[in-house]
Amino acid sequence: MSLNGRYDVLFEPVAIGPVVAPNRFYQVPHCNGMGHMRPRSEAANRGMKAEGGWGVVCTQETEIHPTTDLAPYAEQRIWDDRDIPALRLMTDAVHEHNALAGIELVHNGFHAQNLLTRASGLAPMDIALHMPYPRQARAADKSDLKQLRKWHQAATLRSIRAGFDIVYVYAGHRLSLAHQFLLPQCNNRGDEYGGTLENRVRLTRELLEDTLELAEGKCAVAFRFAVDELNGPDGMQADEEGRAVVEMLAELPDLWDVNVSGWENDSATTRFVPQDGYQMDYIGFVKKITSKPVVGTGMLTSPDKMVSLVRGGVLDFIGAARPSIADPFLPNKISSGEIEKIRECIGCNICVSADNFGVPIRCTQNPTQGEEWRRGWHPEIIRRRESGTSTLVVGGGPSGLECGMQLARRGYQVTIAEAADEPGGRVRLESGLPGLNAWRRVADHRLDDIRQRANASIYMNSQMNADAVVELGIPNVFVATGSRWCRDGRGRNAALGLPISPEIRVYTPDDIFSGASPSSGDILVYDDDQGYLAGVLAEHLAHAGCSVTYATPAANVSAFTLYTLENERVYAQMSKCGINLLTSTQLVDARPGKVRLKSVYTDDLSERDFSGILLVTQRTRNARLYEELQKSRHKFAHLELVGDAAAPGLIADAIWSGHMAAQNFERNSLDIDREWYRREIISLAHEQSGK
Amino acid sequence: MSLNGRYDVLFEPVAIGPVVAPNRFYQVPHCNGMGHMRPRSEAANRGMKAEGGWGVVCTQETEIHPTTDLAPYAEQRIWDDRDIPALRLMTDAVHEHNALAGIELVHNGFHAQNLLTRASGLAPMDIALHMPYPRQARAADKSDLKQLRKWHQAATLRSIRAGFDIVYVYAGHRLSLAHQFLLPQCNNRGDEYGGTLENRVRLTRELLEDTLELAEGKCAVAFRFAVDELNGPDGMQADEEGRAVVEMLAELPDLWDVNVSGWENDSATTRFVPQDGYQMDYIGFVKKITSKPVVGTGMLTSPDKMVSLVRGGVLDFIGAARPSIADPFLPNKISSGEIEKIRECIGCNICVSADNFGVPIRCTQNPTQGEEWRRGWHPEIIRRRESGTSTLVVGGGPSGLECGMQLARRGYQVTIAEAADEPGGRVRLESGLPGLNAWRRVADHRLDDIRQRANASIYMNSQMNADAVVELGIPNVFVATGSRWCRDGRGRNAALGLPISPEIRVYTPDDIFSGASPSSGDILVYDDDQGYLAGVLAEHLAHAGCSVTYATPAANVSAFTLYTLENERVYAQMSKCGINLLTSTQLVDARPGKVRLKSVYTDDLSERDFSGILLVTQRTRNARLYEELQKSRHKFAHLELVGDAAAPGLIADAIWSGHMAAQNFERNSLDIDREWYRREIISLAHEQSGK
Repeated sequence: MSLNGRYDVLFEPVAIGPVVAPNRFYQVPHCNGMGHMRPRSEAANRGMKAEGGWGVVCTQETEIHPTTDLAPYAEQRIWDDRDIPALRLMTDAVHEHNALAGIELVHNGFHAQNLLTRASGLAPMDIALHMPYPRQARAADKSDLKQLRKWHQAATLRSIRAGFDIVYVYAGHRLSLAHQFLLPQCNNRGDEYGGTLENRVRLTRELLEDTLELAEGKCAVAFRFAVDELNGPDGMQADEEGRAVVEMLAELPDLWDVNVSGWENDSATTRFVPQDGYQMDYIGFVKKITSKPVVGTGMLTSPDKMVSLVRGGVLDFIGAARPSIADPFLPNKISSGEIEKIRECIGCNICVSADNFGVPIRCTQNPTQGEEWRRGWHPEIIRRRESGTSTLVVGGGPSGLECGMQLARRGYQVTIAEAADEPGGRVRLESGLPGLNAWRRVADHRLDDIRQRANASIYMNSQMNADAVVELGIPNVFVATGSRWCRDGRGRNAALGLPISPEIRVYTPDDIFSGASPSSGDILVYDDDQGYLAGVLAEHLAHAGCSVTYATPAANVSAFTLYTLENERVYAQMSKCGINLLTSTQLVDARPGKVRLKSVYTDDLSERDFSGILLVTQRTRNARLYEELQKSRHKFAHLELVGDAAAPGLIADAIWSGHMAAQNFERNSLDIDREWYRREIISLAHEQSGK
Repeated sequence: MSLNGRYDVLFEPVAIGPVVAPNRFYQVPHCNGMGHMRPRSEAANRGMKAEGGWGVVCTQETEIHPTTDLAPYAEQRIWDDRDIPALRLMTDAVHEHNALAGIELVHNGFHAQNLLTRASGLAPMDIALHMPYPRQARAADKSDLKQLRKWHQAATLRSIRAGFDIVYVYAGHRLSLAHQFLLPQCNNRGDEYGGTLENRVRLTRELLEDTLELAEGKCAVAFRFAVDELNGPDGMQADEEGRAVVEMLAELPDLWDVNVSGWENDSATTRFVPQDGYQMDYIGFVKKITSKPVVGTGMLTSPDKMVSLVRGGVLDFIGAARPSIADPFLPNKISSGEIEKIRECIGCNICVSADNFGVPIRCTQNPTQGEEWRRGWHPEIIRRRESGTSTLVVGGGPSGLECGMQLARRGYQVTIAEAADEPGGRVRLESGLPGLNAWRRVADHRLDDIRQRANASIYMNSQMNADAVVELGIPNVFVATGSRWCRDGRGRNAALGLPISPEIRVYTPDDIFSGASPSSGDILVYDDDQGYLAGVLAEHLAHAGCSVTYATPAANVSAFTLYTLENERVYAQMSKCGINLLTSTQLVDARPGKVRLKSVYTDDLSERDFSGILLVTQRTRNARLYEELQKSRHKFAHLELVGDAAAPGLIADAIWSGHMAAQNFERNSLDIDREWYRREIISLAHEQSGK
């Protein structure tokens, strides 16, 4: 129940086939880079969401057989009985908090690389594997499909034994064989599994029927389906076959989990798709067709919006992946009327990038994400202070705000000194750039919290030097002074800098942030950082009126955005802004009238004339204050460098660093050290060869 | 001892500090994608080399601390005592065959991504991490370096406890902190660890001294050092500081393991660096300076060359990574005088690609590589036949030759029928292309073997149809009929093909192989296969006299070659040949006078006129014979499709498929099935949190 009844509808129990969800908050299946490679981490990560009030918590896509092997990615696995104990850890953790546990069974078809097992891939037709490896999956024949159904059945039975309440059939993101069969773009079969929609839906129907038969009374069967691929006639469309599929299978599954695919659409970033609930226009029709409960997603974080979606007959369950990552306690906060305490997802896809790198999930907003097991971090509970000592945090950027907030939550007296006239540091600056407005939430959340605490105060316009710090007399100092962008071209391809004449106009991102931005002329944006920022700044300069050339030594523009699923949109956006894009291109040297660029692969030089160069290459740590304090005759009880001043990285890294410093303050150093080594290790104890 | 004394020198024992290697064959540290993630596989893989006669067998680079975490890559790890049991499996496996076991301890400096641990990176100077993630390592301070030495010492002690005979200090490939400190390109320090060479070598010297002190009498200390980076003054050079380092440290380590770096030079492919022993010009000076034994590598496979290197005072040990992968029994074959049975490495770097994908090693020449534990495959021993039945292999390409050879080795009567007038299939065809000559060895090795076996015969010009197969009366048939390239443009970006007018001249790779290659005109090579082949064919056409434009939807030319470490050389070579390179470019449609290309990111179209198009996009399986035999009224005891005809892939995949079919013929199907599930699983049994 929610405090004043306004959100009560969200806390109604809802039946899903034979099981009942305690409320309408539903964490849909999402990857977290843990899975079968990190089963304790997985259990702790999912269990935390159940603790935070999610009524349904699902694990990620789960390989059902060695022919759908996603190595080296850390997804979930249910190849045989030996996987059950690890999965049981997860269901126990979820059940402990009275939530339902769901599992998304999958055969990935031609998306499965099978690099570990070396098995042949299966697909609706002969088609290249979905990876940069010259190998093809083959058209599954009838006996393959029979086998596939048996594998899915066996996985269903094992899921039930592992304690799952909801078992999925999955047809989304072009990541599953069932989905691939549905799409004429990758199904040209001439048999009863190809051709008409009725035929293309046959495999999905069979999997649903098989699963329902085995699930009978024991668990519910969910169907995850992409109603639209945002690709016009080159993909599924909600007002064409998307609707037809829902009509054909309307009452078959116990629950419809519907989305827009591919993954880059289902998990669109706020940079390009800023509006909450952006999927509703596509999935809204589903509930009109089926009497079964419907779950949908789309960055839903506003409880009023949630209520209106339920009352308006659009959704039965408020689905979430990213909002449940940024705030595992979102449901409980709504329930207790602490709406303003919700840690809102900023839609940056750093969570997704971790899965794409094959490592455990992380989150810009929620630094405890991924650390539930390893470090025992909890998003809402933090160890109490060890003493009555007081602390100073120098710098009110992301790491300083996080460090200060967490120290205050621990009960310490906290003073935050910020040099600028507004807090937020790089978050405030970057969130002023095109598309990054939602990133403000990182600072806003922390400032709101800090301002409500009697034991924390934040001072602006407070540039600190060593004498000033000593004078304050606070015994514990955290230095979060951030970093500034280099002006000498040092970067990934020039660790020592580049020959850049002092006569040519050079800008750094800091110049742009401070308002010294050019508004005309031919500007070269040189990106040897290869993150997201140079691309955003190029767009900013184009909007400001400059004629922009963007050059990077990487093969892709804003190469890191490949991992956040944004890269195609970055290209399209930059092209739309009229930016001239030069990839695989290095800056050689620069003087007025003569800027030399070269291919990274050959010695071919080209000369250009630019009125200015924006260098987005590398950062210098603002560590001078820290070094002076280290050398000072005054001895501090604690002196620590955090955030970008310690090691420039993503905002997520800075937040994590500030959080870590606050968590570990006044802890036993052996305990701290021990956590660095905490990990999940391969068993040597038991035989691992059998089925 | 070798048969006639000619190679006796290679089988002399050689002292390395306090230990003695039984002979001069030395498997230098190399990655195998197993490491801490697959300890049983690792042990079996390294143990096999000891069994095959390698006197020293090393494991791969071994992370010494959580600040050098290489996740998601499967390297070796020795963070704390819990890693010792897994490492002990490896040393036991090596010692069982009386070889010495070596371990390459490493802190990877700014190459360590620390994506799992999230630790700050350490480097000689503030510098970007060596990965597409906008994060920097920071300059290690004095206390960091003290810690680093302690970590290295602890790792040394654990290595000794795990049973290693040789412990490495590693300064190569720019992958280790010690190497990064050595290089002025990434060390601009002002303290005693930067500036002069004496200062830059200080960390290496300290690590060597520390390790020697702990190793005293218990194990040897090897130093792996890159004498040259093949980068002129932008890197270490053998006749400059490379020599100076050797002079400074000459007598310090117990053994010098010297190479040319980076990895792409140390593991150069035969496509670009065809000559065996190519590193000797650079490393040859080392032995003149030190009295300690020297090991060097460079695709050494000729025993006569090995003898001359030892007798000529160039090397004490014949180092190998790739030749020991292609033939773990190379030393034993030399010893027993079976030189012609050596399975020579073809220098294709498929082994390297597996490590770069984060999965276990594989090898084009040696399909048992990586399967020693999982499937119990042995490169020299194969299970005897189950019966006296006879077998037919249709197709004498890589999979057919491998399948036939292994069936014959098992003792079955084997008939191989090849349609062409020469055997070898795609291996024969592709090895005629620029740079791929060494690939012939794949066919040559198998043909040599088959021709010496009384129970195997191979027939050329033997195109088979179903009637012909039935008429032969052989009850067991393996269909290895390969694949052909599509002529309709179907590929990664057009699963159903492209609108290509029949009036425009279209070529496929098969046309080029059959001699129907254009020798003039403007030719578009369209690469939607994204492997290596289109790039090689573009080069071939340029040599033949065509004006070549190469277009690919990928961001890189020959994108797969990123994983074989060849991509930069591919670019350089194609550019040198005058080929116009268009990346991120899709073919839209084609008719005479009008070929339309578009950016994969925008709708920008461009029109061009080409006299012909070479489509390298996807392959069609030649499965018709198999399908006819399946439908035939004649019932075969065994009928199986193998190689590219089952699923087009790399030559390595075809060989593996043929090998698998031969291994599994007449085996119990439950045993076969069980092996698909064999894998290494995370332990849930014991506490994993402590140090």
